[in-house]
Amino acid sequence: MNQSIQTLDVKIPALDESNYAITIGRDFLADIWTYIRAQWPKCMPFIVTDAELVKAGHLKTLLGSEKVPTYVIDPPGETSKHIRTVVAIIETMEKHFFGRDSLIIALGGGTVGDIAGFAAAIFKRGVPVVQIPTTTVSQADSSVGGKTGVDSSISKNAFGAFWQPAAVYIDVGTLSTLDDRQFRAGLVESVKHAAIADADYFAFLEQNIDAICQKDMSMLEHIALTNCRIKASVVGEDPTEKNKRRILNYGHTMGHAVESASEFKLLHGESVAIGMIAAGKIEAALGWVRDDRLERIESLLEKLRMPTRIPAELQKNTLLELLRTDKKAIGRWPRFILLESLGTTLCQDGQWAHKVSQDIVEQCLEQIY
Amino acid sequence: MNQSIQTLDVKIPALDESNYAITIGRDFLADIWTYIRAQWPKCMPFIVTDAELVKAGHLKTLLGSEKVPTYVIDPPGETSKHIRTVVAIIETMEKHFFGRDSLIIALGGGTVGDIAGFAAAIFKRGVPVVQIPTTTVSQADSSVGGKTGVDSSISKNAFGAFWQPAAVYIDVGTLSTLDDRQFRAGLVESVKHAAIADADYFAFLEQNIDAICQKDMSMLEHIALTNCRIKASVVGEDPTEKNKRRILNYGHTMGHAVESASEFKLLHGESVAIGMIAAGKIEAALGWVRDDRLERIESLLEKLRMPTRIPAELQKNTLLELLRTDKKAIGRWPRFILLESLGTTLCQDGQWAHKVSQDIVEQCLEQIY
Repeated sequence: MNQSIQTLDVKIPALDESNYAITIGRDFLADIWTYIRAQWPKCMPFIVTDAELVKAGHLKTLLGSEKVPTYVIDPPGETSKHIRTVVAIIETMEKHFFGRDSLIIALGGGTVGDIAGFAAAIFKRGVPVVQIPTTTVSQADSSVGGKTGVDSSISKNAFGAFWQPAAVYIDVGTLSTLDDRQFRAGLVESVKHAAIADADYFAFLEQNIDAICQKDMSMLEHIALTNCRIKASVVGEDPTEKNKRRILNYGHTMGHAVESASEFKLLHGESVAIGMIAAGKIEAALGWVRDDRLERIESLLEKLRMPTRIPAELQKNTLLELLRTDKKAIGRWPRFILLESLGTTLCQDGQWAHKVSQDIVEQCLEQIY
Repeated sequence: MNQSIQTLDVKIPALDESNYAITIGRDFLADIWTYIRAQWPKCMPFIVTDAELVKAGHLKTLLGSEKVPTYVIDPPGETSKHIRTVVAIIETMEKHFFGRDSLIIALGGGTVGDIAGFAAAIFKRGVPVVQIPTTTVSQADSSVGGKTGVDSSISKNAFGAFWQPAAVYIDVGTLSTLDDRQFRAGLVESVKHAAIADADYFAFLEQNIDAICQKDMSMLEHIALTNCRIKASVVGEDPTEKNKRRILNYGHTMGHAVESASEFKLLHGESVAIGMIAAGKIEAALGWVRDDRLERIESLLEKLRMPTRIPAELQKNTLLELLRTDKKAIGRWPRFILLESLGTTLCQDGQWAHKVSQDIVEQCLEQIY
């Protein structure tokens, strides 16, 4: 037996840098179709939206008299964020003879964007996707950054890919039809962006929270632009979340545990609000707080009518067990994103996610029931 | 209504270049596990293979006494190359608590590699995959280069992603259990590599074809190495097939049509053999042939006992219609990869895929029935 073994090294060059534009305005949904057709004249457009958006009239506004093959996700929301929906979308596209020159357009909230973005990532090894987010949470967060994914029958976000959008169009006018609880909960991502990256933005939110909650369109345009600027800057530095992108997870480690423990009765933003308070308590316990930031964050979240305490029915042990099985846990315990000051995330020895002992987390949890 | 619209440009930086090693030898399958564990000590390994490989004893040779969670594709072959198999693999991994630190190991032929590679591309936004190809076609072609994908219920390769392997291990000893027809058909990819890129390699194949067909292990090691060197060089220049990578499609445009028309009764390599003859006839019709290359290609394919004529039962019109709906067709007609000389692919004005009129293709088809 000859055991001579030879090795060949394969070098795959870096892919080119990519660019896309986020266009932000109000009541321009009816014009977006013209922009899309002008930018991709040779692509075949396919729309993914959901029953709620159709009912609100947004699909009709987008298309005018155009007829475009469309997949309407029904029921809207988390239960449809499943691999079977992606398979149904792609098989629908194939029945309409869509090929590699397809352009998928996602009109809707975070769920629509996640499903359509993932379908675009895997159809024929990838086709472009245009995101038209219509909720506060998707306009602030999920439409930008390229994270896409859906659930399996076993767990959440089992399937996914990094797939940057080809363009994002944000019409804050679409928020007028969003129900108030969803609207407010989605604003928590704005508070998060301000807390981790921009103290002036935090002060702006404090000063204008009433006008924002009354859906003042100029205010909504300003916060959409600021959110996208902050998120795009973080994602541009670390698109595949090797390190710095983790700061976007501020408030989310405990937030995800609370959201799961509530069996999704608490909205994502409501859960993250509690998670931000938990992070503040951890910062205080570790002796890193010499300012009034926790009070300011708590006060702003209360004005958004967000919960800032863990509901009594969620058991502490359940939360601790959920933290142990967090998808980003290392050795069965997650790391936490913490603030250095309002507007600045704590970074130690080049690391943005921090080890915090289970004892400290447990003590902090007990303080916020 | 305020129609002021603002635009923000997002820059996603180029991802780093990536590298992986192809290790080639004979009868070292039993050692590969040690190499893998040494390279990825912190990853949880999960194996994807098929019932044929298990029966041939290769899974047992790879693992020795190790117990590793494994998904066995059954039945082996094309019918299992479907999105439902990928979903089943990922749900199996989740039931075994696999997470982002998973390492998928694909042990098998092209189908196993395609399925496992695609599962790796989309599980939790991507985990590494090690390819251990066990057939002539996968050792020459599909295990290197990062194309992965599976079929939908409507069409072939509807789902897919570019996902480079983390490592490739080629043990030519595994070819000893491959049936003769599959073994010979897989060698057509070697003839293709020689024809498009390396005249000396073509001469080597001519001189040693008998020893190769008798599975002389030194010969098989040499051709595995040469195939990977040629393919890796082309893929390294153009990983996502914007232009030059298309040369790997030589013989494949007509080959795919013949394969489909035969309802997959002809093997991929057998169909590509006919496609290479068709390409040669087109080159001759266009006046680009001043040598004996077509005779040499035909003679070599005949020594491999490949068909070089279209079976009479495949209708010319069926083939023409399949060409029109080729996945790479532009305006309902595909482009063809042609040789400039033996070992050199024709490139005109920077383009590697060439327009050829339907008349010429039809005439050439008639010559090879």
